[in-house]
Amino acid sequence: MRIAVDAMGGDHGPSVIVNGALEGARASGCELILVGRTPEIEQVLPTPMPPDIAVEIIHAPDVIDMEEHPAQAARRKPGSSINIALGQLKEHRADAMVSAGNSGAVMAAALMILGRIDGIDRPAIAAFLPTLYARTLMLDLGAVTDPKPHHLVQFARMGAIYARLVLQTDTPKVGLLSNGEEPTKGNHLIQEVFPLLAIEPAINFVGNIEGKDILRGVVDVLVADGFTGNVAIKVAEGTASMLTDVLREEMTRSWPRKLAALALKPAFQSMKRRLDYAEIGGAPLLGVNGEVLIAHGRSNERAIANAVIGARKVAEEAVREAIRQTASAN
Amino acid sequence: MRIAVDAMGGDHGPSVIVNGALEGARASGCELILVGRTPEIEQVLPTPMPPDIAVEIIHAPDVIDMEEHPAQAARRKPGSSINIALGQLKEHRADAMVSAGNSGAVMAAALMILGRIDGIDRPAIAAFLPTLYARTLMLDLGAVTDPKPHHLVQFARMGAIYARLVLQTDTPKVGLLSNGEEPTKGNHLIQEVFPLLAIEPAINFVGNIEGKDILRGVVDVLVADGFTGNVAIKVAEGTASMLTDVLREEMTRSWPRKLAALALKPAFQSMKRRLDYAEIGGAPLLGVNGEVLIAHGRSNERAIANAVIGARKVAEEAVREAIRQTASAN
Repeated sequence: MRIAVDAMGGDHGPSVIVNGALEGARASGCELILVGRTPEIEQVLPTPMPPDIAVEIIHAPDVIDMEEHPAQAARRKPGSSINIALGQLKEHRADAMVSAGNSGAVMAAALMILGRIDGIDRPAIAAFLPTLYARTLMLDLGAVTDPKPHHLVQFARMGAIYARLVLQTDTPKVGLLSNGEEPTKGNHLIQEVFPLLAIEPAINFVGNIEGKDILRGVVDVLVADGFTGNVAIKVAEGTASMLTDVLREEMTRSWPRKLAALALKPAFQSMKRRLDYAEIGGAPLLGVNGEVLIAHGRSNERAIANAVIGARKVAEEAVREAIRQTASAN
Repeated sequence: MRIAVDAMGGDHGPSVIVNGALEGARASGCELILVGRTPEIEQVLPTPMPPDIAVEIIHAPDVIDMEEHPAQAARRKPGSSINIALGQLKEHRADAMVSAGNSGAVMAAALMILGRIDGIDRPAIAAFLPTLYARTLMLDLGAVTDPKPHHLVQFARMGAIYARLVLQTDTPKVGLLSNGEEPTKGNHLIQEVFPLLAIEPAINFVGNIEGKDILRGVVDVLVADGFTGNVAIKVAEGTASMLTDVLREEMTRSWPRKLAALALKPAFQSMKRRLDYAEIGGAPLLGVNGEVLIAHGRSNERAIANAVIGARKVAEEAVREAIRQTASAN
């Protein structure tokens, strides 16, 4: 199994990506293709190279920045690490691809280079929500901001397949993000999608899920339109970060508080770990003709390692082939 | 100034509402009309009555439950405390109305009994977000799940007037909830609304606001479609509650942790206070022909007291008249 890794993506530079990828490759026993500017990659590779990992470097002269316009960058920079890593997939030189780069650009380049799976009209960006006791795969997070009802049905099918194969949940529960639990709640789109999901034979649809419950782990797959899904996941992120800020401010106001907070450090760390995206690794881009995992831009080594391990699993379980079969049957 | 209070609304029963209302009336120097089942209200009134507060009880035989279908309940229960309290407004016997009951029913009954302000096509439910250092008025939170672009422009105008008069912010900053900051981001609706707000002379439009920033207090007024607004505020609520749960679990795992947590109690309380909806009180229903404040169902006495104080202020500042003038000028 060979995993192509975009060595230039992410906020922390190639060193974090390369070392994380090596860790993931060692843990999962796969080969690595590191894609990016060769000198920068070679500079951060350990010397001597660990003998137990097969690493190939593929040179990519360009880098797509986080701020660039995704579709334009993907088109105008064929020599970017994202495009060239996806090319490795396209040419069957790699079984899966991981990038912590500009997620919109990964998506646009994947569409351009790999294309869609037959029967899937629009791909979706998914992510794992750090819920209290379980994982919830939420999709779409911004790929399709004005979806049609049948797009959301396709998202539900893809999400259920992913949860079944990768999370190994037998009959994954699928929910629909809405402004109330009752079937009559929702905007026009959600009200149209609800009955379609309810009659979908391959899906264990449990109904509408309200915003307050998305982190409770009540479903395995949470379907949303890309606009609302994007707002929801960012509100969750922003709320967590604001609460952490307030907590930190309050805990450091006086010496007694600082001391007590020090004693609670293990509790805070354990809390952080339970909610940490790094434990989760990459989020799949579902519906494109290739196994693509997008890692958070903030990814540390551990997150990249987990994304590589996840990519291996996605390739092994042949998620894309299962999606293709389901899509062509519908 | 006379404030009508729905004594039957809220999760904690009439005692909390009545005592909170008395506290608010005393603090703001207004008269109270308590609306609900007379015997239940009389039972929780202090004896003897405080001599400094004028209280009238208006009997309402019915109660609308939190679970009832809002529009149906409002139509079928003319004798509910919500409907009768709104009737007091309609008949100019009260200057403002406060309810911690079924917010959908308050909205439906207000539309039915008070009607819309001329020039406002759809009213909006607003709420204050508990941001880190300031307050942000967010609207709509579910009144209009499929708005047209001009509805959102009207929401922006109403929100700006409210922020100017009640929060006393000189030129309130208005933002639009979207999936990215750039003007090109958003679904079709948001992309249409952006340029309309940008050219709106009476509004200090600062652009799109992402989900991660809604609690940062970067704007005074945050405009959203009712569907996304509802999901966003509930995700924030759910995230905060999940984090609190995880924190509590981690803090009580061992005796040393429990002791340290005890020492930090003032810090936690101060954090809670900073984010507490009870400090904020009621959220206005904007666009109906009367000053209506909706308090959270979970409201404690302090929240109800603050809602009554807020209602007095709303009535005093003649928010509705200002909205009417702006609406008729557009």
